[in-house]
Amino acid sequence: MADIEAPQVNPNEEGGDVSKGPSKSELKKRAKEAEKAKKAAEKAAKQAELEAQKAAAEVDFSTEYYGKLPLNQSQSRPRRSRIDITTLTPDMDGTQVLLRARVQTSRMQGSKMVFFNLRQRTDSVQALLTVAPGKVSKQMAKWAGSLQMESIVLVEGIAKKTPEPIKSATVSDVEIHITQIHLVSGIESVLPFSVEDAARPETEIETGEDVQYKRVLLDTRLNNRVVDLRTQTNQAVFKLQHAISHLFREHLDAQGFTEIHSPKLQGAATESGASVFKVSYFKGNAFLAQSPQLAKQMAIAADFERVYEIGPVFRAEDSNTHRHMTEFIGLDLEMSIEEHYHEVMELLDALFLHMFRSLKQKYAKEIETVRKQFPADEFKWREGPEGTLKMSFKEAVDLLVEDGVSRESLDDINTENEKRLGRIVREKYDTDYFIIDKFPMELRPFYTMPDPDDPTLSNSYDFFMRGEEILSGAQRIHDPTLLAEKMRAKGVDPASMAPYLDAFKMGCPPHGGGGIGLERVLMLFLKLNNIRRASLFPRDPKRLEP
Amino acid sequence: MADIEAPQVNPNEEGGDVSKGPSKSELKKRAKEAEKAKKAAEKAAKQAELEAQKAAAEVDFSTEYYGKLPLNQSQSRPRRSRIDITTLTPDMDGTQVLLRARVQTSRMQGSKMVFFNLRQRTDSVQALLTVAPGKVSKQMAKWAGSLQMESIVLVEGIAKKTPEPIKSATVSDVEIHITQIHLVSGIESVLPFSVEDAARPETEIETGEDVQYKRVLLDTRLNNRVVDLRTQTNQAVFKLQHAISHLFREHLDAQGFTEIHSPKLQGAATESGASVFKVSYFKGNAFLAQSPQLAKQMAIAADFERVYEIGPVFRAEDSNTHRHMTEFIGLDLEMSIEEHYHEVMELLDALFLHMFRSLKQKYAKEIETVRKQFPADEFKWREGPEGTLKMSFKEAVDLLVEDGVSRESLDDINTENEKRLGRIVREKYDTDYFIIDKFPMELRPFYTMPDPDDPTLSNSYDFFMRGEEILSGAQRIHDPTLLAEKMRAKGVDPASMAPYLDAFKMGCPPHGGGGIGLERVLMLFLKLNNIRRASLFPRDPKRLEP
Repeated sequence: MADIEAPQVNPNEEGGDVSKGPSKSELKKRAKEAEKAKKAAEKAAKQAELEAQKAAAEVDFSTEYYGKLPLNQSQSRPRRSRIDITTLTPDMDGTQVLLRARVQTSRMQGSKMVFFNLRQRTDSVQALLTVAPGKVSKQMAKWAGSLQMESIVLVEGIAKKTPEPIKSATVSDVEIHITQIHLVSGIESVLPFSVEDAARPETEIETGEDVQYKRVLLDTRLNNRVVDLRTQTNQAVFKLQHAISHLFREHLDAQGFTEIHSPKLQGAATESGASVFKVSYFKGNAFLAQSPQLAKQMAIAADFERVYEIGPVFRAEDSNTHRHMTEFIGLDLEMSIEEHYHEVMELLDALFLHMFRSLKQKYAKEIETVRKQFPADEFKWREGPEGTLKMSFKEAVDLLVEDGVSRESLDDINTENEKRLGRIVREKYDTDYFIIDKFPMELRPFYTMPDPDDPTLSNSYDFFMRGEEILSGAQRIHDPTLLAEKMRAKGVDPASMAPYLDAFKMGCPPHGGGGIGLERVLMLFLKLNNIRRASLFPRDPKRLEP
Repeated sequence: MADIEAPQVNPNEEGGDVSKGPSKSELKKRAKEAEKAKKAAEKAAKQAELEAQKAAAEVDFSTEYYGKLPLNQSQSRPRRSRIDITTLTPDMDGTQVLLRARVQTSRMQGSKMVFFNLRQRTDSVQALLTVAPGKVSKQMAKWAGSLQMESIVLVEGIAKKTPEPIKSATVSDVEIHITQIHLVSGIESVLPFSVEDAARPETEIETGEDVQYKRVLLDTRLNNRVVDLRTQTNQAVFKLQHAISHLFREHLDAQGFTEIHSPKLQGAATESGASVFKVSYFKGNAFLAQSPQLAKQMAIAADFERVYEIGPVFRAEDSNTHRHMTEFIGLDLEMSIEEHYHEVMELLDALFLHMFRSLKQKYAKEIETVRKQFPADEFKWREGPEGTLKMSFKEAVDLLVEDGVSRESLDDINTENEKRLGRIVREKYDTDYFIIDKFPMELRPFYTMPDPDDPTLSNSYDFFMRGEEILSGAQRIHDPTLLAEKMRAKGVDPASMAPYLDAFKMGCPPHGGGGIGLERVLMLFLKLNNIRRASLFPRDPKRLEP
């Protein structure tokens, strides 16, 4: 190790105050003391050098006990193993550990002790540095105590069983007694807020009596998303986001589905309803897909039988609600059916039950972490032989009318009434999850298969969580003649969608599917109250950065 | 079952020719015969009705033995189980089976037998229909024999062990003796080509002596992708595409990675190099992300430690080569490093080995299916203690110079020389897979970490398969001061990328990563020779549809 930086020690640290004019004898005395101090310092330096050499034998990333490490450009690879905080257990008492972590907080106690809360993702541990002759100098403690919050440090120390549980860290029974501390990456700007403040529960802010906690507003968080994402809450939220996609794939892989990737760049602005973004495409234009609907149906016409896709979908809707974004992740699936579209609906239901059960069983820790900041009733669904609550659109309307909503206003069920229905259902059936089947044809897109007995109804369904729609799906029309007819009825020129229509002219099995909003499922399962919290770097009409 | 369509039988089918004027006695005779025929027909009809009733007891989707089924609008759900061709085995000899399949080919033999090749995805089975009194009428055989290629049929029959292997089907030891056949979905347009032709090996087309096979050109295929995708080859190709993503995730999930989804809509046209597509975004503009590079690095600054993303990336490059598309799927990862960027390079290497090994072991059947149409040497990599071949950029240049390339032309290794290097390496080291490390700094983007000993080099690497680059990666600069300096040196204004730069000012661990082109890996592993064959609905400067 040749390239070690000089230790960052201030040589004037213990020098006296020379601003007042001293007397000659005083100066002489001081000169003598300085000479003495110099000799002592030289001796100490020699001693330190010896100790450093000794330490270097086992710690080759630095010859110093503390200081800023040189920029890691992969200069060397000593292959010293570093630990995760989560692996610390009381039976490691007395063993030496090396770890990289963030300084969540640091607190000097007198001039001889520094307490740290060191953080790695969802976990934290207490560490302390105590001045001890020949091991930890006052300068070292001072330097360590001056490290800014959010600095990344490399710490070596001894794991110690704690005499009593530490409440401020997730590891409560072990702390680290620091012997070395180095700065890996510092803070070169002003932190917009502390991660501790960003992780505070709303309830604490509202009821805090002794301390007036600073509330970190959502916009401030999103403007500084990189810092906001470091909260233990957000680390857990995005582990759960990953979990949902993982469980989606796991369930469908086992059911014979093939994952596809359909193009987001489209030649025509298609589908009805939502508006689309226009893209400059060489000398012409393209449009961003507002869903993989057309492509996944074409995959069915191409004999893929069962397909799913996880990918971005784009909606050029100028709405800034708590549940809309201009870009979100669709969990889409489509499958051929043998006899009846309820085959799809039931598969989707089984998929959600698999997700809910697995989240509860395997991700209890992450859910618990999020609950601390976002308290919520546990998400409820029905288990057992009765199964998921399913009702027709008509029955849903009846429930709302019974509750006092005027039937005239219920041609469609708007967002407000959806939430009301969610409350009614929870009271009556004790579930946050249910399915509405048989939507009126006029509320659905042109490619929806009409009901065989009542052409004003359709073979379509929505799934709900806590009174908000998280999935929309249906049997699709696979007959090209009927499809073209329905296109014209909805004002879509069949010629404008020729490649799509052609797919069905080449023979296509009956099929159905659905699209799930990943961020909505995450938001509603955890009750995050705003969809932006469920998106890594959310996009809405007013936000394109970071 | 109330809504069954009338059987599609032509009542005039066996009627005599009445165009010549017949004599009176002749007419009388005919009337008598007609009366007789009518009675016989009535009797037969009664008999048929009885049989139909009997059949209906077990076959409730139709009271007829053949014909077009009414449009499936989910009228009923008899829950009859249908089989996959793949499950057919000789010990099922004599059992009744029901299946839905495509008619790949049908061939009348005389007027009493029809041979079918029925296809489901990568598999096919021979089925035959034989006229038999009271069971299969001549009309039924005629109707069945007239079914167009690519029609979807629902077939009921008896599984029979074959006396000798059937070469034309993937199931060689079982055939189906049809008792019922119904049309689920017909062809309402002219097929652009037969799936049989589309699946023919190039070699067969070139060497075919007896038959002049029709070559289906790539453009014709892509214009009619839905039909082209039905070949057994393509069904296997896209199962393998799914497999690659699956193995990528499987390996990284086990290594503690978190899956992320970064926004494709960006506020600024960023990164150097490739050009970006501009999007109309409400009253302003947005740009399509040319990689998740910035977002995944920001996720590292946000403490995610190890992340991956599978998603579309967009390149507005007007090049129509065999290996470029304007939209493709990136398998991206980024991870913090402890000591050295080779931690990333080695993890990526292990990831590829996991993919290669698993493909070979678990997807041998699909690879074999593709090989039939695209013959290729088996993809080779090095196993054993020596591990993957790794060389520096300088060593790669030396190999090329040794082979006769002038050193002056080798500031960069162009596509042609990459392929040449691939050939040299295969000859010398018997591998199709290798890594080049330590690229010159000037060939890499501004965020690449320079080599600690030689600032003209960088801590970056490319991975190659069959002489083509499939991954590019590096250690990134996590220090904001050095990053801004390198931006300026490459002509990028640091202010234009403020949110990205800010992420590092808030403290960021050393990190590195890489981006893999999914379609390239698929193309090169299988030697498909054109990247469009590895994309479901490919996009290039000239193609936005289907």
